[in-house]
Amino acid sequence: MKRIRVGFLGCGNVGGGVYRLLEGFREEILHRYGLQIDVEKILVRNVTKPRSVEIPECMLTEDPGEVLENPDIAFVLEFMGGEEPATAYMLRALKAGKTVVTANKVALAMNWHLLQKAAMEHGCGLYYEASVGGAIPVISTLSTSLRANRIEKVMAIINGTTNYILSRMAREGQSYETVLRDAQRLGLAEPDPASDVDGIDAACKLSIMASLAFHCRVTYPQIYREGITEISDVDIRMGREMGLTLKPLALAKREGDTLEIRVHPAFLPASHPLSSVDGSFNAVYIHGHACGDMMLQGRGAGDMPTASAVVGDLLQAAMVEKHMHPTFANTAEPDSSLVFTDNWKTRYYIRLSAMDAVGVLARVADCFAEKNVSIASMVQKDAAEGRVMLILVTHEAPEHALASAVAALDPRKVQVQSVIRVES
Amino acid sequence: MKRIRVGFLGCGNVGGGVYRLLEGFREEILHRYGLQIDVEKILVRNVTKPRSVEIPECMLTEDPGEVLENPDIAFVLEFMGGEEPATAYMLRALKAGKTVVTANKVALAMNWHLLQKAAMEHGCGLYYEASVGGAIPVISTLSTSLRANRIEKVMAIINGTTNYILSRMAREGQSYETVLRDAQRLGLAEPDPASDVDGIDAACKLSIMASLAFHCRVTYPQIYREGITEISDVDIRMGREMGLTLKPLALAKREGDTLEIRVHPAFLPASHPLSSVDGSFNAVYIHGHACGDMMLQGRGAGDMPTASAVVGDLLQAAMVEKHMHPTFANTAEPDSSLVFTDNWKTRYYIRLSAMDAVGVLARVADCFAEKNVSIASMVQKDAAEGRVMLILVTHEAPEHALASAVAALDPRKVQVQSVIRVES
Repeated sequence: MKRIRVGFLGCGNVGGGVYRLLEGFREEILHRYGLQIDVEKILVRNVTKPRSVEIPECMLTEDPGEVLENPDIAFVLEFMGGEEPATAYMLRALKAGKTVVTANKVALAMNWHLLQKAAMEHGCGLYYEASVGGAIPVISTLSTSLRANRIEKVMAIINGTTNYILSRMAREGQSYETVLRDAQRLGLAEPDPASDVDGIDAACKLSIMASLAFHCRVTYPQIYREGITEISDVDIRMGREMGLTLKPLALAKREGDTLEIRVHPAFLPASHPLSSVDGSFNAVYIHGHACGDMMLQGRGAGDMPTASAVVGDLLQAAMVEKHMHPTFANTAEPDSSLVFTDNWKTRYYIRLSAMDAVGVLARVADCFAEKNVSIASMVQKDAAEGRVMLILVTHEAPEHALASAVAALDPRKVQVQSVIRVES
Repeated sequence: MKRIRVGFLGCGNVGGGVYRLLEGFREEILHRYGLQIDVEKILVRNVTKPRSVEIPECMLTEDPGEVLENPDIAFVLEFMGGEEPATAYMLRALKAGKTVVTANKVALAMNWHLLQKAAMEHGCGLYYEASVGGAIPVISTLSTSLRANRIEKVMAIINGTTNYILSRMAREGQSYETVLRDAQRLGLAEPDPASDVDGIDAACKLSIMASLAFHCRVTYPQIYREGITEISDVDIRMGREMGLTLKPLALAKREGDTLEIRVHPAFLPASHPLSSVDGSFNAVYIHGHACGDMMLQGRGAGDMPTASAVVGDLLQAAMVEKHMHPTFANTAEPDSSLVFTDNWKTRYYIRLSAMDAVGVLARVADCFAEKNVSIASMVQKDAAEGRVMLILVTHEAPEHALASAVAALDPRKVQVQSVIRVES
């Protein structure tokens, strides 16, 4: 039997889940792995605040030093979220020789290189399975299981809130605003929803996944990002008529030495495995040169699924002889041989409102042809008040060409209502 | 840079794939992991046989000792398949202090305890990610990522051949025999298909998955097994009309201290994530008390997907300080506190051919009622020649009660055409 003493940084939803899991699974952990895990200290903002999980008062502290400099504590579990002070605390813990397990995608996306460096220099571990996709083993699959692969594509639904909103908009035909308000009421979206609906959360997670997949650091600012706030239920309905499902995607592709890393809503063919990933589920679709296509799906958020990943990491950390930093050399530093592009090729869905007049359709078609954007299908919908709705779907075209074709449309005759990428 | 010398046992489809992957990915492996992997010797049955991959003749040998007792070789990769002589060779390699990476589900299902014991006693590693689900990280998910979970259910499609056959029968409305013959012609089914169509292959893989999931050895003979050879296209069609998809399932459940471990074709609701796993794809659906529902899907067979798992294991084995046998204490030995049942509860689809006479339907209903099997729906189909087709779907009922209800039907009036379990 080996005794493991851990400290928590933070004790909100996830921290409470980890505490409950450690208590409820205590005997199995002892029996299966010969480990007795004792929580020594928990850093909280306010020791007197009522909590959903019962914790002995002597465990709680408002002084970070009681965790970070506590000589009894060898493992620090971080659940504070946000870049600071979480990063500073984790660095202090690592420099004090403690192994860190974190669920913090923001701190990792922003300061991975610093955290990894500190962990290596001080011979301790840095574990972060819980930072992406909750219980789904995304990190271990990318960093360990698929080591023998040149990963060419990672396509993921990794933000539960936006997937929930788009799924409900599709199912109920409601507007973005209505569903968002309801999600907020149900606690499924934050009072300030920007981190989710603007794709910030997904971009942080994609930064981590892409860095692992391509063995070079992909920083947050290198990620193209577009939110779901402009999505109309009309587009979801029109897409569905064409066999397309709208999903909040995080996408990383490598072709030769060129990378494209982007977060935005996108249409997928209804037959694509990701298009049936509904509600609060997360899923990661991976294509590697040896493994071929693969998809992992599961609970991407919630106290217990996240706790499953955190405690899984903790058990691994407690059992290894020496912590591995398998990807440091290649993921914590940029790779100058790789180029980031924002001129990727994909298909596009475009909804226009056009004057119902002779020659307008021809002029629209010309605009696209002039920029070498080939149109795969064009549908004209219910005319009203002298205007028609036009839905175009293009063949694969470069992003810049598409943008200049759209910009060249005559705004007096044609209004662009929406442009949505169509992935496959 | 660290030099790793490996020997192969066997060089068929998978061995050839591993050789190609090691050659084609050589530079990346060196750059990313600082490892130079050299194949020293390859045991084959016939050194002069032409091969799909070009291998220097000096590497080939027909003498197992040149691999197993070769002091230069530290890692042995086994691709022979079958229980013997693979098990004996792996034991020899382990006893000589070599780490073994294997894709051999039969040897593992039958002799796991011996292999694990030898690996532990001699301080070397035993790696087998490739034994189940090809490139899909099933083993690492069950044995490592989900350590903090009490796994309650594993439900899997892990035999590509039978999934291909049932998928094509569903799509084309063809008979089992026709599709099997075509699959054999295409090389997707063996000339002797028993291992696949009788569920033997799936049961070996389920033995490995269930042992890991439940932390006790689940041996091959403890697994209930039924093949797909009796499946009629009529049932696939009737099921579909009721929103059910027929899949070749491997299923392991734990409720309290009771285990049920079984391989058989089963209907799933069309909305179940496993029901859209088609053709040669494999998928594993897992429910754990903390992680909730999770599904992993991907290429379960083929030279390169399997090579992805083998080389992934090899890289892990080459990089660790000390090999972990995280599950030995709990998986290599039976657990006397757990009980195996064959009287599980599930729903049933039953197709009957009954005499079209007054009272027959009532008598059928009575038979089920007498055994306390409750019928959820009953459909009567196209009568012909004085007989009708009856399709019953029951509510959840114990297997034994269902069997005795079916046995109690009067064979002069009612013939049982098929009984298929309905899972959810």
